[in-house]
Amino acid sequence: MKPRIQAIAFDAYGTLFDVHSVISLCNRKFPGQGAELSRLWRTKQLEYTWLRSLMGRYEDFWTVTESALVFACRSLGLACPADTRRDLMESYLRLDTFPEVKSALAKLSQYKLAILSNGSPRMLAAAVENAGLKSVFSDVISVDEIKIYKSSPRVYGLASQRLAVPDKAIAFVSSNFWDVVGAKCFGLWTCWVNRGRLPEDELGVRPDVAVDRLEGLITILAGVTDAAPVNP
Amino acid sequence: MKPRIQAIAFDAYGTLFDVHSVISLCNRKFPGQGAELSRLWRTKQLEYTWLRSLMGRYEDFWTVTESALVFACRSLGLACPADTRRDLMESYLRLDTFPEVKSALAKLSQYKLAILSNGSPRMLAAAVENAGLKSVFSDVISVDEIKIYKSSPRVYGLASQRLAVPDKAIAFVSSNFWDVVGAKCFGLWTCWVNRGRLPEDELGVRPDVAVDRLEGLITILAGVTDAAPVNP
Repeated sequence: MKPRIQAIAFDAYGTLFDVHSVISLCNRKFPGQGAELSRLWRTKQLEYTWLRSLMGRYEDFWTVTESALVFACRSLGLACPADTRRDLMESYLRLDTFPEVKSALAKLSQYKLAILSNGSPRMLAAAVENAGLKSVFSDVISVDEIKIYKSSPRVYGLASQRLAVPDKAIAFVSSNFWDVVGAKCFGLWTCWVNRGRLPEDELGVRPDVAVDRLEGLITILAGVTDAAPVNP
Repeated sequence: MKPRIQAIAFDAYGTLFDVHSVISLCNRKFPGQGAELSRLWRTKQLEYTWLRSLMGRYEDFWTVTESALVFACRSLGLACPADTRRDLMESYLRLDTFPEVKSALAKLSQYKLAILSNGSPRMLAAAVENAGLKSVFSDVISVDEIKIYKSSPRVYGLASQRLAVPDKAIAFVSSNFWDVVGAKCFGLWTCWVNRGRLPEDELGVRPDVAVDRLEGLITILAGVTDAAPVNP
């Protein structure tokens, strides 16, 4: 049964926005340890979102991201003075999009387009603004309004509420496999953007489709014969 | 205000039981890649417990641990035939305790002693039996009865229910900092066993006490002047 897709909700970090510039800055600030710092920072950032959600102790993504950076530096024995920490954190506000993102979004303009992200409203607004994408999205939806992180089903329920489109007519697109699993378990149609050709996680659920670039989604949606774009 | 400790609930894996034998077996099965496999296996094992808990899709710890192993091998490009997988999994049933565990538990026998673990009942029963600790614990409590993993507050609530001792009279002991944070947020008195001299996670909460070996807990509890052991 093919879905009648009317709206597309995108994850932000790693899906639309390339966090490579954060990694580059880590490398410049900590030559030779940038890769390890980036990896641990990201691992802890996600871990803290899951743990805080499970404990019912939400703090916004800026706070969690900074906490993860502080831990990662301490864990690796790296001194991280306030100005270095500020520079690293602020790189989250000026991320490049992946090369194909702008042209792909333009080709999907017949759908309602949105972001559905763990990012705080301020972080997301800055990233969207700085990438010149402000006019592209009907909504930029942050988990901050419900104070729990992905992969809680409550997060994925925000899309239909904010977009006024039924769950079954929403495509959710993410490069994070676990994020796709959360959306799929909730009931959205899902597309995994697997740019890095990574293996699938073993969580008992698979995406509806997987693509290696966003263009793949365009082709797939075009082939969904009973898709009903809202703005044809 | 010092607590009136009557019972002590211990985390199992990494706290009482040393998972080094699992790591050794990884090294024998996959020479040169054992350390990386162990690290990724453990990371994914925990990640899957958190994600499944957040999604409300519990599977028991044996299943999650095996899923994490399958993913870790695939991610590292390691072929893991059924007999290798079985051997690695079964190493969880025969774990050594850390060197000081048995003597420390003997010195704490005036308290009600329990295990409070993510492990499935079968995994925990085997590990306790094989380590010769069956007579030591009043209760071996698995999250399996409530189908959600640590750090959900519901897990830490199991201790008082099963031990018939008030929350405020229970000491929770774990080597996993995030586990201590979960217990502390719930309202238990907490002791972090930091054998590896690791840095504290940045989760906004700190343990009541930290020790580098279990003996440290004995000293601390002995110094808790108004402690009231239940079996003096």
